[in-house]
Amino acid sequence: MSNAPSCSAWRLYVIVDRSAAKGRDLARIAQQAIRGGADVIQFRDKAALAGSLAEEGERLLKVTRAAGVPLIINDRVDVAAAIGADGVHLGREDLPVEAARRILGPGKLLGKSTHSLQQALAADREAIDYLAVGPIYPTPTKPDYPDVGPALIGQVASQVAHPVVTIGGIDERTLPEVIAAGARCAAVVRAVCAADDPEAAARRLKRAFVL
Amino acid sequence: MSNAPSCSAWRLYVIVDRSAAKGRDLARIAQQAIRGGADVIQFRDKAALAGSLAEEGERLLKVTRAAGVPLIINDRVDVAAAIGADGVHLGREDLPVEAARRILGPGKLLGKSTHSLQQALAADREAIDYLAVGPIYPTPTKPDYPDVGPALIGQVASQVAHPVVTIGGIDERTLPEVIAAGARCAAVVRAVCAADDPEAAARRLKRAFVL
Repeated sequence: MSNAPSCSAWRLYVIVDRSAAKGRDLARIAQQAIRGGADVIQFRDKAALAGSLAEEGERLLKVTRAAGVPLIINDRVDVAAAIGADGVHLGREDLPVEAARRILGPGKLLGKSTHSLQQALAADREAIDYLAVGPIYPTPTKPDYPDVGPALIGQVASQVAHPVVTIGGIDERTLPEVIAAGARCAAVVRAVCAADDPEAAARRLKRAFVL
Repeated sequence: MSNAPSCSAWRLYVIVDRSAAKGRDLARIAQQAIRGGADVIQFRDKAALAGSLAEEGERLLKVTRAAGVPLIINDRVDVAAAIGADGVHLGREDLPVEAARRILGPGKLLGKSTHSLQQALAADREAIDYLAVGPIYPTPTKPDYPDVGPALIGQVASQVAHPVVTIGGIDERTLPEVIAAGARCAAVVRAVCAADDPEAAARRLKRAFVL
Protein backbone atom coordinates (compact mmCIF):
# COMPACT_ATOMS: atom_id res chain seq x y z
CA MET A 1 0.00 0.00 0.00
CA SER A 2 2.21 2.81 -1.21
CA ASN A 3 -0.46 5.43 -0.61
CA ALA A 4 -2.11 3.89 2.42
CA PRO A 5 -2.84 6.32 5.22
CA SER A 6 -0.75 5.68 8.32
CA CYS A 7 -2.37 3.65 11.07
CA SER A 8 -2.82 6.82 13.12
CA ALA A 9 -5.41 8.02 10.58
CA TRP A 10 -7.53 4.89 10.97
CA ARG A 11 -10.91 5.27 12.64
CA LEU A 12 -12.93 2.22 11.60
CA TYR A 13 -11.07 -1.12 11.48
CA VAL A 14 -13.33 -3.88 10.15
CA ILE A 15 -12.46 -7.52 10.79
CA VAL A 16 -13.98 -9.78 8.17
CA ASP A 17 -14.38 -13.07 10.02
CA ARG A 18 -15.83 -16.18 8.47
CA SER A 19 -17.46 -17.23 11.72
CA ALA A 20 -19.41 -13.95 11.97
CA ALA A 21 -20.41 -13.60 8.32
CA LYS A 22 -23.50 -15.86 8.39
CA GLY A 23 -22.28 -17.76 5.33
CA ARG A 24 -22.12 -14.65 3.17
CA ASP A 25 -19.35 -13.80 0.71
CA LEU A 26 -16.43 -12.22 2.57
CA ALA A 27 -15.14 -10.15 -0.35
CA ARG A 28 -18.60 -8.64 -0.75
CA ILE A 29 -18.78 -7.80 2.96
CA ALA A 30 -15.33 -6.18 2.73
CA GLN A 31 -16.48 -4.14 -0.22
CA GLN A 32 -19.61 -3.02 1.59
CA ALA A 33 -17.59 -2.16 4.71
CA ILE A 34 -15.19 -0.05 2.65
CA ARG A 35 -18.07 1.76 0.95
CA GLY A 36 -19.41 2.49 4.40
CA GLY A 37 -16.09 3.98 5.47
CA ALA A 38 -13.81 1.20 6.76
CA ASP A 39 -10.24 2.49 6.81
CA VAL A 40 -8.64 -0.95 7.03
CA ILE A 41 -9.80 -4.55 6.62
CA GLN A 42 -8.51 -7.52 8.57
CA PHE A 43 -9.18 -11.05 7.32
CA ARG A 44 -9.64 -13.64 10.03
CA ASP A 45 -10.67 -17.29 9.68
CA LYS A 46 -9.40 -19.41 12.53
CA ALA A 47 -10.80 -22.62 11.05
CA ALA A 48 -9.41 -22.49 7.50
CA LEU A 49 -6.24 -24.11 6.20
CA ALA A 50 -3.50 -22.05 4.55
CA GLY A 51 -4.47 -22.89 0.98
CA SER A 52 -8.03 -21.64 1.28
CA LEU A 53 -6.89 -18.67 3.40
CA ALA A 54 -4.57 -17.66 0.57
CA GLU A 55 -7.34 -18.02 -2.02
CA GLU A 56 -9.86 -16.03 0.01
CA GLY A 57 -7.14 -13.52 0.90
CA GLU A 58 -6.40 -12.92 -2.77
CA ARG A 59 -10.08 -12.27 -3.43
CA LEU A 60 -10.17 -9.77 -0.57
CA LEU A 61 -6.95 -8.16 -1.77
CA LYS A 62 -8.53 -7.36 -5.13
CA VAL A 63 -11.30 -5.48 -3.34
CA THR A 64 -9.05 -3.64 -0.88
CA ARG A 65 -6.42 -2.75 -3.50
CA ALA A 66 -9.05 -1.29 -5.79
CA ALA A 67 -10.23 0.87 -2.89
CA GLY A 68 -6.75 1.83 -1.64
CA VAL A 69 -7.46 0.32 1.78
CA PRO A 70 -4.90 -1.93 3.51
CA LEU A 71 -5.61 -5.64 4.06
CA ILE A 72 -4.24 -7.18 7.25
CA ILE A 73 -4.14 -10.98 7.71
CA ASN A 74 -4.81 -12.45 11.13
CA ASP A 75 -2.05 -14.68 12.54
CA ARG A 76 -0.78 -16.39 9.35
CA VAL A 77 2.39 -14.55 8.38
CA ASP A 78 3.04 -17.10 5.64
CA VAL A 79 -0.35 -16.52 4.03
CA ALA A 80 0.20 -12.75 4.15
CA ALA A 81 3.64 -13.12 2.57
CA ALA A 82 2.31 -15.55 -0.05
CA ILE A 83 -0.39 -13.20 -1.31
CA GLY A 84 1.44 -9.92 -0.69
CA ALA A 85 -1.06 -8.59 1.84
CA ASP A 86 -0.35 -5.27 3.52
CA GLY A 87 0.29 -6.65 6.97
CA VAL A 88 -0.40 -9.12 9.76
CA HIS A 89 -2.15 -8.91 13.08
CA LEU A 90 -0.48 -11.01 15.79
CA GLY A 91 -2.26 -12.35 18.85
CA ARG A 92 -0.54 -13.18 22.12
CA GLU A 93 0.08 -16.78 21.01
CA ASP A 94 1.19 -16.07 17.45
CA LEU A 95 4.74 -15.65 16.14
CA PRO A 96 7.03 -13.07 17.74
CA VAL A 97 6.97 -9.61 16.13
CA GLU A 98 10.59 -9.68 14.96
CA ALA A 99 10.12 -13.06 13.24
CA ALA A 100 6.98 -11.83 11.48
CA ARG A 101 8.75 -8.64 10.40
CA ARG A 102 11.67 -10.64 8.99
CA ILE A 103 9.37 -12.93 6.99
CA LEU A 104 7.13 -10.14 5.70
CA GLY A 105 9.95 -7.86 4.63
CA PRO A 106 9.95 -4.06 4.73
CA GLY A 107 6.96 -1.78 4.31
CA LYS A 108 4.37 -4.08 5.84
CA LEU A 109 2.03 -3.30 8.73
CA LEU A 110 2.29 -5.24 11.98
CA GLY A 111 -0.28 -5.05 14.75
CA LYS A 112 -0.27 -6.81 18.09
CA SER A 113 -3.01 -7.70 20.55
CA THR A 114 -2.71 -6.56 24.16
CA HIS A 115 -5.06 -7.19 27.06
CA SER A 116 -3.64 -4.97 29.81
CA LEU A 117 -1.70 -1.74 30.32
CA GLN A 118 1.42 -3.78 31.03
CA GLN A 119 1.09 -5.73 27.76
CA ALA A 120 0.41 -2.50 25.85
CA LEU A 121 3.53 -0.84 27.26
CA ALA A 122 5.61 -3.91 26.36
CA ALA A 123 4.17 -4.08 22.82
CA ASP A 124 4.84 -0.36 22.41
CA ARG A 125 8.58 -1.11 22.65
CA GLU A 126 8.38 -3.67 19.82
CA ALA A 127 8.74 -3.09 16.07
CA ILE A 128 5.00 -2.82 15.51
CA ASP A 129 2.86 -0.32 13.59
CA TYR A 130 -0.15 -0.33 15.91
CA LEU A 131 -1.35 -2.13 18.98
CA ALA A 132 -4.82 -3.39 19.76
CA VAL A 133 -6.24 -3.18 23.26
CA GLY A 134 -9.21 -5.16 24.48
CA PRO A 135 -11.58 -6.82 24.78
CA ILE A 136 -13.17 -3.55 25.87
CA TYR A 137 -16.50 -5.32 26.38
CA PRO A 138 -17.37 -9.02 26.71
CA THR A 139 -17.27 -10.75 23.32
CA PRO A 140 -17.95 -14.29 22.14
CA THR A 141 -14.82 -14.05 19.95
CA LYS A 142 -12.49 -13.94 22.97
CA PRO A 143 -14.22 -15.97 25.67
CA ASP A 144 -10.87 -16.69 27.35
CA TYR A 145 -10.10 -13.03 28.04
CA PRO A 146 -11.93 -10.94 30.62
CA ASP A 147 -13.13 -7.61 29.26
CA VAL A 148 -10.84 -4.74 30.28
CA GLY A 149 -13.48 -2.00 30.21
CA PRO A 150 -13.32 1.39 28.47
CA ALA A 151 -11.32 2.99 31.31
CA LEU A 152 -8.17 1.25 30.07
CA ILE A 153 -8.36 3.06 26.72
CA GLY A 154 -7.33 6.45 28.10
CA GLN A 155 -4.58 4.95 30.23
CA VAL A 156 -3.07 3.11 27.27
CA ALA A 157 -3.53 5.96 24.79
CA SER A 158 -1.76 8.43 27.07
CA GLN A 159 1.22 6.15 27.70
CA VAL A 160 2.06 4.53 24.36
CA ALA A 161 3.65 6.03 21.26
CA HIS A 162 1.92 3.75 18.71
CA PRO A 163 -1.61 4.16 17.38
CA VAL A 164 -4.12 2.23 19.47
CA VAL A 165 -6.94 0.14 17.99
CA THR A 166 -9.68 -0.60 20.52
CA ILE A 167 -11.41 -3.94 20.10
CA GLY A 168 -13.91 -6.31 21.67
CA GLY A 169 -17.68 -6.08 21.76
CA ILE A 170 -17.72 -2.64 20.18
CA ASP A 171 -20.93 -1.81 18.33
CA GLU A 172 -23.09 1.15 17.48
CA ARG A 173 -24.41 1.28 21.03
CA THR A 174 -21.06 1.13 22.84
CA LEU A 175 -18.91 3.08 20.36
CA PRO A 176 -19.73 6.57 21.78
CA GLU A 177 -18.45 5.46 25.19
CA VAL A 178 -15.28 4.06 23.58
CA ILE A 179 -14.65 7.33 21.76
CA ALA A 180 -15.39 9.35 24.90
CA ALA A 181 -12.80 7.21 26.69
CA GLY A 182 -10.14 8.36 24.24
CA ALA A 183 -10.31 5.88 21.36
CA ARG A 184 -9.29 7.20 17.96
CA CYS A 185 -9.87 3.84 16.21
CA ALA A 186 -12.30 0.99 16.87
CA ALA A 187 -12.19 -2.52 15.46
CA VAL A 188 -15.46 -4.31 14.93
CA VAL A 189 -16.35 -7.84 13.89
CA ARG A 190 -20.03 -8.66 14.30
CA ALA A 191 -21.17 -5.03 14.20
CA VAL A 192 -20.37 -5.01 10.47
CA CYS A 193 -19.86 -8.67 9.42
CA ALA A 194 -23.10 -9.90 10.93
CA ALA A 195 -25.15 -6.78 10.11
CA ASP A 196 -28.07 -7.10 7.72
CA ASP A 197 -26.58 -4.19 5.78
CA PRO A 198 -22.79 -4.12 6.37
CA GLU A 199 -22.38 -0.88 4.39
CA ALA A 200 -24.98 1.01 6.40
CA ALA A 201 -23.60 -0.43 9.64
CA ALA A 202 -20.07 0.68 8.77
CA ARG A 203 -21.34 4.12 7.80
CA ARG A 204 -23.10 4.62 11.12
CA LEU A 205 -20.03 3.50 13.06
CA LYS A 206 -17.70 5.73 11.07
CA ARG A 207 -19.95 8.71 11.59
CA ALA A 208 -19.60 8.40 15.36
CA PHE A 209 -15.98 9.50 15.01
CA VAL A 210 -16.77 12.79 13.33
CA LEU A 211 -19.73 13.80 15.46
CA MET B 1 21.53 -28.42 6.98
CA SER B 2 24.70 -27.90 5.00
CA ASN B 3 25.76 -31.53 5.38
CA ALA B 4 22.35 -33.14 5.35
CA PRO B 5 22.05 -36.19 3.16
CA SER B 6 19.80 -35.66 0.17
CA CYS B 7 16.21 -36.84 0.47
CA SER B 8 17.01 -39.80 -1.76
CA ALA B 9 19.18 -41.24 1.00
CA TRP B 10 16.34 -41.16 3.54
CA ARG B 11 14.93 -44.47 4.71
CA LEU B 12 13.17 -43.76 8.00
CA TYR B 13 11.17 -40.50 8.20
CA VAL B 14 9.77 -39.99 11.69
CA ILE B 15 6.88 -37.59 12.25
CA VAL B 16 6.83 -36.30 15.81
CA ASP B 17 3.16 -35.50 16.36
CA ARG B 18 1.79 -34.12 19.60
CA SER B 19 -1.45 -36.07 19.22
CA ALA B 20 0.39 -39.41 19.04
CA ALA B 21 2.99 -38.78 21.74
CA LYS B 22 0.86 -39.72 24.75
CA GLY B 23 1.78 -36.51 26.55
CA ARG B 24 5.51 -37.23 26.40
CA ASP B 25 8.23 -34.71 25.60
CA LEU B 26 8.55 -34.32 21.84
CA ALA B 27 12.22 -33.34 21.82
CA ARG B 28 13.03 -36.47 23.79
CA ILE B 29 11.04 -38.64 21.35
CA ALA B 30 12.89 -37.00 18.45
CA GLN B 31 16.20 -37.72 20.13
CA GLN B 32 15.25 -41.35 20.73
CA ALA B 33 14.05 -41.70 17.14
CA ILE B 34 17.33 -40.32 15.82
CA ARG B 35 19.34 -42.67 18.04
CA GLY B 36 17.26 -45.50 16.61
CA GLY B 37 18.14 -44.42 13.07
CA ALA B 38 15.63 -41.77 11.91
CA ASP B 39 17.07 -39.98 8.88
CA VAL B 40 14.73 -37.00 9.10
CA ILE B 41 12.27 -35.62 11.66
CA GLN B 42 9.02 -33.85 10.86
CA PHE B 43 7.27 -31.82 13.55
CA ARG B 44 3.48 -31.82 13.36
CA ASP B 45 0.98 -30.36 15.80
CA LYS B 46 -2.29 -29.44 14.13
CA ALA B 47 -3.78 -28.02 17.32
CA ALA B 48 -1.03 -25.61 18.43
CA LEU B 49 -0.79 -21.90 17.70
CA ALA B 50 2.24 -20.42 15.95
CA GLY B 51 3.94 -19.13 19.09
CA SER B 52 4.07 -22.49 20.80
CA LEU B 53 4.90 -24.24 17.52
CA ALA B 54 7.91 -21.97 17.19
CA GLU B 55 9.00 -22.64 20.78
CA GLU B 56 8.62 -26.41 20.45
CA GLY B 57 10.22 -26.28 17.01
CA GLU B 58 13.28 -24.54 18.44
CA ARG B 59 13.63 -27.25 21.06
CA LEU B 60 13.42 -29.91 18.37
CA LEU B 61 15.89 -28.04 16.20
CA LYS B 62 18.52 -28.20 18.95
CA VAL B 63 18.18 -31.97 18.99
CA THR B 64 18.16 -32.45 15.22
CA ARG B 65 21.01 -29.97 14.59
CA ALA B 66 23.20 -31.71 17.15
CA ALA B 67 22.56 -34.98 15.32
CA GLY B 68 22.94 -33.58 11.79
CA VAL B 69 19.41 -34.67 10.89
CA PRO B 70 17.03 -32.29 9.05
CA LEU B 71 13.90 -30.95 10.77
CA ILE B 72 10.83 -30.44 8.58
CA ILE B 73 7.84 -28.43 9.84
CA ASN B 74 4.34 -29.51 8.88
CA ASP B 75 2.21 -26.88 7.09
CA ARG B 76 3.39 -23.67 8.85
CA VAL B 77 5.86 -22.04 6.46
CA ASP B 78 6.04 -18.99 8.73
CA VAL B 79 7.02 -21.07 11.76
CA ALA B 80 9.70 -22.86 9.72
CA ALA B 81 11.06 -19.52 8.47
CA ALA B 82 10.92 -17.99 11.95
CA ILE B 83 13.03 -20.72 13.56
CA GLY B 84 15.23 -21.52 10.57
CA ALA B 85 14.04 -25.12 10.21
CA ASP B 86 15.36 -27.19 7.33
CA GLY B 87 12.11 -27.40 5.41
CA VAL B 88 8.34 -27.67 5.28
CA HIS B 89 5.94 -30.43 4.41
CA LEU B 90 2.87 -29.21 2.53
CA GLY B 91 -0.47 -31.00 2.50
CA ARG B 92 -3.04 -30.68 -0.27
CA GLU B 93 -4.72 -27.75 1.48
CA ASP B 94 -1.62 -25.86 2.54
CA LEU B 95 0.14 -23.03 0.70
CA PRO B 96 1.24 -23.52 -2.91
CA VAL B 97 4.80 -24.84 -3.37
CA GLU B 98 6.12 -21.73 -5.12
CA ALA B 99 4.83 -19.43 -2.35
CA ALA B 100 6.40 -21.62 0.32
CA ARG B 101 9.70 -21.69 -1.57
CA ARG B 102 9.70 -17.92 -1.90
CA ILE B 103 9.07 -17.40 1.82
CA LEU B 104 11.59 -20.03 2.96
CA GLY B 105 14.39 -18.86 0.70
CA PRO B 106 17.02 -21.05 -0.95
CA GLY B 107 18.46 -24.28 0.38
CA LYS B 108 15.35 -25.48 2.22
CA LEU B 109 13.57 -28.80 1.76
CA LEU B 110 10.01 -28.89 0.47
CA GLY B 111 7.85 -31.98 0.50
CA LYS B 112 4.30 -32.38 -0.75
CA SER B 113 1.56 -34.87 0.03
CA THR B 114 -0.06 -36.81 -2.79
CA HIS B 115 -2.88 -39.34 -2.63
CA SER B 116 -2.95 -40.73 -6.17
CA LEU B 117 -0.70 -41.39 -9.18
CA GLN B 118 -2.14 -38.31 -10.87
CA GLN B 119 -1.34 -36.08 -7.90
CA ALA B 120 2.15 -37.58 -7.64
CA LEU B 121 2.87 -36.89 -11.32
CA ALA B 122 1.64 -33.30 -10.92
CA ALA B 123 3.70 -32.74 -7.75
CA ASP B 124 6.74 -34.19 -9.53
CA ARG B 125 6.64 -31.22 -11.92
CA GLU B 126 6.72 -28.73 -9.03
CA ALA B 127 9.77 -27.22 -7.28
CA ILE B 128 9.75 -29.81 -4.49
CA ASP B 129 12.49 -31.94 -2.94
CA TYR B 130 10.43 -35.04 -2.25
CA LEU B 131 6.85 -36.18 -2.51
CA ALA B 132 4.87 -38.25 -0.07
CA VAL B 133 2.40 -40.85 -1.25
CA GLY B 134 -0.34 -42.33 0.89
CA PRO B 135 -2.07 -43.20 3.04
CA ILE B 136 -0.77 -46.65 2.11
CA TYR B 137 -2.91 -48.24 4.84
CA PRO B 138 -5.89 -46.91 6.80
CA THR B 139 -4.77 -44.44 9.48
CA PRO B 140 -6.58 -42.42 12.15
CA THR B 141 -4.41 -39.41 11.20
CA LYS B 142 -6.04 -39.09 7.78
CA PRO B 143 -9.61 -40.30 8.20
CA ASP B 144 -10.75 -38.22 5.22
CA TYR B 145 -8.50 -40.01 2.73
CA PRO B 146 -9.09 -43.59 1.55
CA ASP B 147 -5.96 -45.74 1.79
CA VAL B 148 -4.27 -46.18 -1.59
CA GLY B 149 -2.69 -49.57 -0.90
CA PRO B 150 0.93 -50.64 -1.43
CA ALA B 151 0.43 -51.31 -5.14
CA LEU B 152 0.55 -47.58 -5.85
CA ILE B 153 4.10 -47.32 -4.49
CA GLY B 154 5.74 -49.08 -7.43
CA GLN B 155 3.65 -47.18 -9.96
CA VAL B 156 4.62 -43.83 -8.46
CA ALA B 157 8.27 -44.70 -7.87
CA SER B 158 8.73 -45.82 -11.47
CA GLN B 159 7.15 -42.67 -12.94
CA VAL B 160 8.44 -39.76 -10.84
CA ALA B 161 11.87 -38.17 -10.70
CA HIS B 162 11.73 -37.03 -7.06
CA PRO B 163 12.38 -39.21 -4.02
CA VAL B 164 9.17 -40.81 -2.73
CA VAL B 165 8.25 -41.01 0.96
CA THR B 166 5.57 -43.60 1.65
CA ILE B 167 3.20 -42.76 4.51
CA GLY B 168 0.03 -43.85 6.27
CA GLY B 169 -0.45 -46.70 8.73
CA ILE B 170 3.07 -48.03 8.23
CA ASP B 171 4.42 -49.97 11.19
CA GLU B 172 6.77 -52.84 11.92
CA ARG B 173 4.23 -55.35 10.68
CA THR B 174 3.39 -53.64 7.36
CA LEU B 175 6.82 -52.16 6.53
CA PRO B 176 8.19 -55.31 4.79
CA GLU B 177 5.26 -55.21 2.35
CA VAL B 178 5.88 -51.49 1.72
CA ILE B 179 9.56 -52.13 0.99
CA ALA B 180 8.72 -55.11 -1.23
CA ALA B 181 6.37 -52.82 -3.17
CA GLY B 182 9.29 -50.53 -4.01
CA ALA B 183 9.49 -48.05 -1.13
CA ARG B 184 12.91 -46.64 -0.37
CA CYS B 185 11.64 -44.44 2.47
CA ALA B 186 8.79 -44.81 4.95
CA ALA B 187 7.27 -42.16 7.18
CA VAL B 188 5.84 -43.27 10.50
CA VAL B 189 3.90 -41.47 13.21
CA ARG B 190 2.46 -43.78 15.84
CA ALA B 191 4.94 -46.62 15.16
CA VAL B 192 7.63 -44.49 16.81
CA CYS B 193 5.84 -41.63 18.63
CA ALA B 194 3.41 -43.86 20.47
CA ALA B 195 5.87 -46.74 21.04
CA ASP B 196 6.82 -47.63 24.61
CA ASP B 197 10.45 -47.40 23.51
CA PRO B 198 10.70 -45.00 20.54
CA GLU B 199 14.40 -45.68 20.06
CA ALA B 200 13.98 -49.45 19.85
CA ALA B 201 10.95 -49.03 17.59
CA ALA B 202 12.89 -46.77 15.22
CA ARG B 203 15.80 -49.21 15.21
CA ARG B 204 13.60 -52.15 14.25
CA LEU B 205 11.94 -50.13 11.46
CA LYS B 206 15.27 -48.90 10.10
CA ARG B 207 16.67 -52.41 10.11
CA ALA B 208 13.91 -53.57 7.74
CA PHE B 209 15.50 -51.46 5.00
CA VAL B 210 18.86 -53.20 5.15
CA LEU B 211 17.65 -56.75 5.52
